[in-house]
Amino acid sequence: MTRQFLEDAFCGESKAHMRYLIFSAEAEEKGLKNLSRMWKAIAHAEFVHARNHYRALGYIGSTEDNLQQCIDGETFEIEEMYPVYNNAANFQEENEAVRTTHFALEAEKIHAEWYKNAKKVAEQGKDVEVGKIFICDVCGYTVEGEAPEKCPVCGAPRSKFVEF
Amino acid sequence: MTRQFLEDAFCGESKAHMRYLIFSAEAEEKGLKNLSRMWKAIAHAEFVHARNHYRALGYIGSTEDNLQQCIDGETFEIEEMYPVYNNAANFQEENEAVRTTHFALEAEKIHAEWYKNAKKVAEQGKDVEVGKIFICDVCGYTVEGEAPEKCPVCGAPRSKFVEF
Ligand SMILES: [Fe+2]
Ligand SMILES: [Fe+2]
Ligand SMILES: [Fe+2]
Ligand SMILES: [Fe+2]
Ligand SMILES: [Fe+2]
Ligand SMILES: [Fe+2]
Repeated sequence: MTRQFLEDAFCGESKAHMRYLIFSAEAEEKGLKNLSRMWKAIAHAEFVHARNHYRALGYIGSTEDNLQQCIDGETFEIEEMYPVYNNAANFQEENEAVRTTHFALEAEKIHAEWYKNAKKVAEQGKDVEVGKIFICDVCGYTVEGEAPEKCPVCGAPRSKFVEF
Repeated sequence: MTRQFLEDAFCGESKAHMRYLIFSAEAEEKGLKNLSRMWKAIAHAEFVHARNHYRALGYIGSTEDNLQQCIDGETFEIEEMYPVYNNAANFQEENEAVRTTHFALEAEKIHAEWYKNAKKVAEQGKDVEVGKIFICDVCGYTVEGEAPEKCPVCGAPRSKFVEF
């Protein structure tokens, strides 16, 4: 049972971490700088907790192992999860969910390709060659090199892209 | 059912985001700078997806609402989840899980107090007054002002503390 509890704790910590990042961004927008920083700090504590559980479960492997996990996760979301969730949201006429599941599905297709390529490169013992990366803060669209004038998935302007 | 699917998608995105942050830190340590940056960028895309689902579920409220969610979550972990998980890990002699659940439990006690205080301050329409915050990168111990010589929970040295 302990293994199952660690899996549940990893899920709980990941959701708490995510909630705190979301609330931190909200506080930042309202000019509550200290509260935003506090949420970000505590989010990091939950990252540490989640990583401890993940390591105890034995899920942190070689770079290739880790990349294969990512390929499997993105592929599940592309082939199973998001098409079904999007279809159900359409069927139940839940337009907001239609939108958020469509946004996610489009980005995951890109992620899966990037991870597949990254795994080939890792197998040769090299680092990936990737230029600047831009993420659409409205839909998560992921692109290398330059942020587009308008997001091809959600139409957001270039100013909405975050650089990495 | 769509609501349940959004809840599951929020969980899936939070876990993917967390996995990618963990792997990004691993890649950084191995000197794989681009791969580490790529993981961090894609983790941000999953943050955007998770936040879209969370908003569609109606869970982003006022600052007080958001803080109450945090108080409830931390309180559950302190009073229910982690004592039981820690006890089970002891009972099944799973020492690694005994350690990770103990580490988490100790930090959550601090988080709950900080969030309760923050809610009182938010109710007066003010930002919290908090100095520098330090998080132990080994156990998540959370402290304001100065990092201790040695972490009181896990014994890690001051150099293991991350500043916010
Ligand atoms: Fe935690
Ligand atoms: Fe993805
Ligand atoms: Fe977009
Ligand atoms: Fe995603
Ligand atoms: Fe916490
Ligand atoms: Fe510690």
